[in-house]
Amino acid sequence: MDDEKKAHSELGLPNPYLNSLDGDFLYHLGYSSLEARNGFTKDGVSHSFQDVKFVVMGGSSGRMRSFAEVIAREINHPVQTAEQLDIHRTDRYAFYKIGPVLSVSHGMGVPSITILLHEITKLLSYAGAKDAVLIRIGTSGGIGVPPGTVVITDKTFNGFLKEEHELVVLGERKVRPAVIDQELARAIQSSQSDARFQTVLGGTMCTDDFFEGQPLNLTPIDCNISQGRVDGAVCEHSDEQKMDFLRRAHSCGVVNIEMECTAMSSLCRLTGYKCAAVCVALLDRLKGDQVKIQEEEYKSFGMRPQSLVASFIKSRLSS
Amino acid sequence: MDDEKKAHSELGLPNPYLNSLDGDFLYHLGYSSLEARNGFTKDGVSHSFQDVKFVVMGGSSGRMRSFAEVIAREINHPVQTAEQLDIHRTDRYAFYKIGPVLSVSHGMGVPSITILLHEITKLLSYAGAKDAVLIRIGTSGGIGVPPGTVVITDKTFNGFLKEEHELVVLGERKVRPAVIDQELARAIQSSQSDARFQTVLGGTMCTDDFFEGQPLNLTPIDCNISQGRVDGAVCEHSDEQKMDFLRRAHSCGVVNIEMECTAMSSLCRLTGYKCAAVCVALLDRLKGDQVKIQEEEYKSFGMRPQSLVASFIKSRLSS
Repeated sequence: MDDEKKAHSELGLPNPYLNSLDGDFLYHLGYSSLEARNGFTKDGVSHSFQDVKFVVMGGSSGRMRSFAEVIAREINHPVQTAEQLDIHRTDRYAFYKIGPVLSVSHGMGVPSITILLHEITKLLSYAGAKDAVLIRIGTSGGIGVPPGTVVITDKTFNGFLKEEHELVVLGERKVRPAVIDQELARAIQSSQSDARFQTVLGGTMCTDDFFEGQPLNLTPIDCNISQGRVDGAVCEHSDEQKMDFLRRAHSCGVVNIEMECTAMSSLCRLTGYKCAAVCVALLDRLKGDQVKIQEEEYKSFGMRPQSLVASFIKSRLSS
Repeated sequence: MDDEKKAHSELGLPNPYLNSLDGDFLYHLGYSSLEARNGFTKDGVSHSFQDVKFVVMGGSSGRMRSFAEVIAREINHPVQTAEQLDIHRTDRYAFYKIGPVLSVSHGMGVPSITILLHEITKLLSYAGAKDAVLIRIGTSGGIGVPPGTVVITDKTFNGFLKEEHELVVLGERKVRPAVIDQELARAIQSSQSDARFQTVLGGTMCTDDFFEGQPLNLTPIDCNISQGRVDGAVCEHSDEQKMDFLRRAHSCGVVNIEMECTAMSSLCRLTGYKCAAVCVALLDRLKGDQVKIQEEEYKSFGMRPQSLVASFIKSRLSS
């Protein structure tokens, strides 16, 4: 691991080659470094990225559209409809700007969020918004916490239950520390204003595979969520092996499982941005195999990370 | 590798637990096993999945919308507009049905396409459409082929330049053979009707990272495509190291690089579905660092895999 030795660009990012780029087009977002620095125009209105303080990210485009409207209400933004807040330019990521808040989808899995993180940290750096914090909101499978609990990640684990992120660069495996900001996690937890749900600080495991890797599946049947256990097209392990592994994960401090956190924590550590993960656990795998919740409850669970992060942003902006 | 020993379900998929599922909801597609078996209704019209012969997949939702209209014209489908062909139910994947053809987006990277592949192979198996073939269309970076060349993959390599796919299941690394169907690749190549572009059979490397893993970046600046070389937020290698690796990849038979092929080839091998990858190379990394093409050429390059796969489907359906 030679992460610590790397050269930095003038931007403050750990890539010296950025200094010699004439211009940098953030391909998957559709914005240029020039627009990041000088602002852009949409429907005749001028916008800037310099004021960005929060980047809130989630897997689904619908969730980030919802969050754009939630945060607009919460901070009394003059524009309140998603259509007017929408600044997307490609079909890769949904993208909304609500004053100092960006609401952006990251798709599913490490490669997809990694592309976004490279481009969004460059966008923020070009814009001079180096103090911005990145927060992922999502749903997840829980281990040893009641369904509906909102987990604020304080440790990120890969599929080997190590606090590391692996990637392959130029034919070699690289292993990077996957450490997440503790202060930000605690600040988010203490900003909770809606007392109708529980929050916990805990470990989050990141896998590269929903069906085989997780190893739990969230399978809504009709209006319920059932939890299929081994329901991918391919399954080469037994229920018993899966339960053994879940117990082992829990004993390491893992309380939920998703598909992005180690990529985010390791890349943000390198780029110097603080990040957090706030995911609701839809069910507790240690309590049984079939957990069913009603569609209304599912929707209400999904709003909890949005509500908590909106409270956090509001409290930060007012302080 | 115990892939060969695995038990199969009655569906023919290598997961014996599927036999004991009461019902299976394909969460990210939004369809149930019952609908896969018995059909579904949209706008008062009945549809079935039993007639599906081709599943065409691509990263971007816009590309798959375009392909839905291209193939509808090509096979003289009675419905020709994407709106009417649209059968999507979630915001995870775009999803169109054009008679025997599904056109579906897979997002970016291995985890995202893997979720789709598990669900789509279950959908096809529940529907009894076991002969369907899966074809990924996309753009890619070329190595040693002229820009605009359409690469039909005959070997799939991971980032270590091995014909394998790695995944982590229950805390253990699994390595699976990543072998792609040769006959299907050749059949697609020989179905070419538009002689205005070149096709080649060749090796394709799959990476998990667009910026650091590839190691080339396609960076359109204004209406051009420039090829940044080391323009991620993080870069810890040199230009020289990158060129050495690209040459090494080329000497192994790699002619293009994308982010999904080994996951597809290994998973399709296990589930028994034939698959192919048809990606246009936007530039040749061995010829220099700055390759610029005009926006019109970029669009025209992007249509080539669609055109070739449409020819292939048309020829298969008429034979």
